[in-house]
Amino acid sequence: MIKIVSYKDNKFILDEILNNTTQFEYDEVNKAVIEILKNIKENGDKAVLEYNEKFDGVKLNSLQVTKQEIDEAYFDNISLELRNSLELAHKKIKEFHEKQKRNSFIDTNTPNKIVGQLINPIEKVGIYVPGGTASYPSTVLMNAVPAKIAGCKEIIMVTPPGKNGKVPANILAAAKIAGIDKIFKVGGAQAIGALSFGTETIPNVYKIVGPGNIYVAMAKKMVYGQIDIDMIAGPSEVLIIADKTANYRYLAADLLSQAEHDKFATSILVTTSEELAKKVQKEIEIQLNQLPRKEIAETSINNQGRIIIVNDIKDACYIANKIAPEHLELAVKNPFEILGYIKNAGAIFMGEYSPEPLGDYMAGPNHTLPTSGTAKFSSPLGVDDFIKKSSIIYYDKNALKELKNDIINIATSEGLDAHANSIKIRFEDK
Amino acid sequence: MIKIVSYKDNKFILDEILNNTTQFEYDEVNKAVIEILKNIKENGDKAVLEYNEKFDGVKLNSLQVTKQEIDEAYFDNISLELRNSLELAHKKIKEFHEKQKRNSFIDTNTPNKIVGQLINPIEKVGIYVPGGTASYPSTVLMNAVPAKIAGCKEIIMVTPPGKNGKVPANILAAAKIAGIDKIFKVGGAQAIGALSFGTETIPNVYKIVGPGNIYVAMAKKMVYGQIDIDMIAGPSEVLIIADKTANYRYLAADLLSQAEHDKFATSILVTTSEELAKKVQKEIEIQLNQLPRKEIAETSINNQGRIIIVNDIKDACYIANKIAPEHLELAVKNPFEILGYIKNAGAIFMGEYSPEPLGDYMAGPNHTLPTSGTAKFSSPLGVDDFIKKSSIIYYDKNALKELKNDIINIATSEGLDAHANSIKIRFEDK
Repeated sequence: MIKIVSYKDNKFILDEILNNTTQFEYDEVNKAVIEILKNIKENGDKAVLEYNEKFDGVKLNSLQVTKQEIDEAYFDNISLELRNSLELAHKKIKEFHEKQKRNSFIDTNTPNKIVGQLINPIEKVGIYVPGGTASYPSTVLMNAVPAKIAGCKEIIMVTPPGKNGKVPANILAAAKIAGIDKIFKVGGAQAIGALSFGTETIPNVYKIVGPGNIYVAMAKKMVYGQIDIDMIAGPSEVLIIADKTANYRYLAADLLSQAEHDKFATSILVTTSEELAKKVQKEIEIQLNQLPRKEIAETSINNQGRIIIVNDIKDACYIANKIAPEHLELAVKNPFEILGYIKNAGAIFMGEYSPEPLGDYMAGPNHTLPTSGTAKFSSPLGVDDFIKKSSIIYYDKNALKELKNDIINIATSEGLDAHANSIKIRFEDK
Repeated sequence: MIKIVSYKDNKFILDEILNNTTQFEYDEVNKAVIEILKNIKENGDKAVLEYNEKFDGVKLNSLQVTKQEIDEAYFDNISLELRNSLELAHKKIKEFHEKQKRNSFIDTNTPNKIVGQLINPIEKVGIYVPGGTASYPSTVLMNAVPAKIAGCKEIIMVTPPGKNGKVPANILAAAKIAGIDKIFKVGGAQAIGALSFGTETIPNVYKIVGPGNIYVAMAKKMVYGQIDIDMIAGPSEVLIIADKTANYRYLAADLLSQAEHDKFATSILVTTSEELAKKVQKEIEIQLNQLPRKEIAETSINNQGRIIIVNDIKDACYIANKIAPEHLELAVKNPFEILGYIKNAGAIFMGEYSPEPLGDYMAGPNHTLPTSGTAKFSSPLGVDDFIKKSSIIYYDKNALKELKNDIINIATSEGLDAHANSIKIRFEDK
C-alpha cells in the first residue's frame, strides 16, 4: 500500500526522497562495459555478431534491417489502427518540434564589424531503441523527429534483435514513419560502441540519443566527451500536485501508469486534502488488481510511492521544485494560477484532462525527459539537441584598431605575449 | 620547425591528425579523483582545507574570498588601464550574449488545447577558474556573463589559492565586474567535489562550467549525470585556411598565439599556396625567438603543428570540417564566399583583421569553445548552457477525447495497460 506522510510533521520526507539517488560507482558493470567497448573497437562487426549470440541468443547473417523488413512491418505486420495512430502521433510531434527550430543570427549594427551565431545540424546521429520486455514505437518517434527537423544528414538507429533475429514490427513501422531507413540489429553497450567507433557495416556518429539499461547508460557515459550523448536516463517519475477538487480515481490511475514502467519508478502525490489522500490510497489497491503488470507496479508503489500531505499549494510547489520530477501533473482547479511557481520539471501536465500518457504519445512535446532530479539543469529532448552553434567574427582594420590596446592589456595581464603580438603585428609599419 | 605536408600526396595526414585524440582510460588519475571526491563528500570543509595544504601549499583559515579582498583587487591591485579594458570586454561580451536570450513559447492555435515550452534559468551554477601558471580574467567574464544573462540566482566561483593564500587580483577584479560575489579558494578535483556535494561553507550547485587540468576534467566527467557540466575541454587548437593573398607574418603570429597556450595545443595552417607555406614556416622560427613562452610554443609547433598544402579552398574546407577546430580563421580574400562550406568549427574568424585574440577577449562571442573535434556536436558556451526547458501540456475534455483511441492504441501496442487505463478512466460513466 502507498505510504501517506505529512510534510508538516516530517520535513525529512523530502531528504529521504532526494537521497534516493544513484551513486557514481558500479564497478562490475563498469568492467564489463570497458571490455565490450574495447572488443567492438578492435573487432568491429565480428564482435557485434558474437554479442548478438551471447546476449540476444541469435546468430545473425546480416546486421542491417532490410528495406523489405521495414516495409512488411509497416504495411503487413501492424494493424491499420496502430499505423494510423502512429502516423497521427508523428504529425503532432512534428508540429510541436518545428516550433523549436532556430535560425542563425548576425549583428551588423556597427558598420565595420559583424558578429553572429550560425546554427548547423549535427551531421551524424545515432538513436538507441531498447528491446527486451516491451517495444516502444513512441521512443522511435520522439527521438527521430527532432533529429529530422534539425536537419541531421545521417540518422542511424540501433536496437537489439529478438531471439528470432527480428526487430518488433511496431518499432520498424515507427522508424518508417519517421523516415529512418538505416537500422542495425545490435543492443546494449555493444551498440554504443559500434556507433562510437564505427564498424565495417555500422557507421560511427557524433551523438547518441535514446534510453537504455544500465549497460547502455554506462557505455554512453564512458564514450561521452569523444562523442556527445543526450542524458543518463534514470527510472521514470511522476509527481502530482492535487487540491481537494481532484478526482481520486484519475489520480490513482495516473500514479499507476507511472509505476507500471519499472520497479524503480517513482509515483508521488502531493495534496492539500487528507480525505483525497485516503481515497487515492484505497483506489490504487483496487486498480492494481486489474493490471497485467501488477507485480512491477505494486513493487514501485510500495517502495517509492508516497502521498505527501501539505498545508497549502505553495508547499506543494516547493516540494516539486526540490524533487524536479520528470513528469509533473497539476491536478488543481486552476493549474495556470500556480504555473509560475514551478521552476524544475521535465513536462508539466495542466489539469484534469492532461494525464501523462497524453504527453507520452500524442500531445507533441517530447517524452524523453530529464529524470532523477536532473530537470534542475536539463531539458526535454528537442531540436536543440541535434544542432550546434558556431560563432562568427568579422572585423575590419579600423574596428580592430579601436580595440587594439584593450586586447593587448588583457593578453599581457594573462601572460600571453603571443596573443598580444598577433594584434600588434597587424599595426606595425612594414 | 613546423612540418609542411601536401594533402594531395598524402591524404593520410588527416587520419594522423584525427587519431591524435584522447583515450577513455586514465587509471591513475581516475583513482586519485575518486578518492578526492569521496573524501570531500564525507569530510567537507576539513578535506578541502587539507587539499589546499597538500596541493596549493597554503594553510587557510577561511575558504571564502572576502568582499574586502574583491574590492581591493578591483580598486587598488590592478592598473586603471586593465580595469577599463576588462570593463569594455565585459560590455561587449554582455551585448553579444544578450542576443542569445530566448523566450518561452506557447501554442494556442487550437482553442481547447495549449502546448508550450517554458525557459527557466538553472538556479545554482558553479564556475571553475584555473590557477597555476597563469591567471585568466577573460575566463571569468566568459563564464559568468551568460550565467548572469540567463538569470541564474546563485553563481559560485571556485579557484585555487596561490601559496600566499590569495587569488590573483585580475581574477577577482573580473569577478567583481561580472557581478560574482561568492568566491571560494579551492581548485582541482576537490573544487568539483565541493560544488557537487556542497560542504559546510561551499554551496552545492546543479551545473559546473569552466576549464581545468586533467584532474578537474575527470572529476567533472565523474559527477556528470548527478549534476551537469559544460564540456570536457581538451587542449586548444587553431586551424587557419589561407589563400595566396594572406599575410605570412600575421599567419605566423596567429599560429604561435595558439601554440603558446600549451605544449599539447595544435596549430594548423591549410593553404593553397606553397610559397606562402614556406614563408610562414620561416617566419614562425623568427617570431618564436621573441616569445617569453618560447619553450611551450616551440614544443607545440614541432609536435602538433602542421602546414597542409591543398589544391583548392574547397579541400581546405573539407579538412576543416573533418578536424572541426576550436578556432577557425579564414585568411582568404573573400571569407564570406566560403562561409557556407564551413559546418564544424567553434568560432570562425573572418579575414585578415579578425585574429583569434580578438575573439578571446573583446569581440563578444564566447571564448569557451568545443575542442578536439567536438565542434562536430557541441557549441560555444552561451546563455543556452544556463537555462533549461520544461514542456507544458493543457488539454480540455473534448481535446483529450479526440485523441483517446489513438493513445490507447499505442499504449496497448507497447504493453502499457495502466497508460491506456489512465485515459479510459476519464471517459467512464461513473
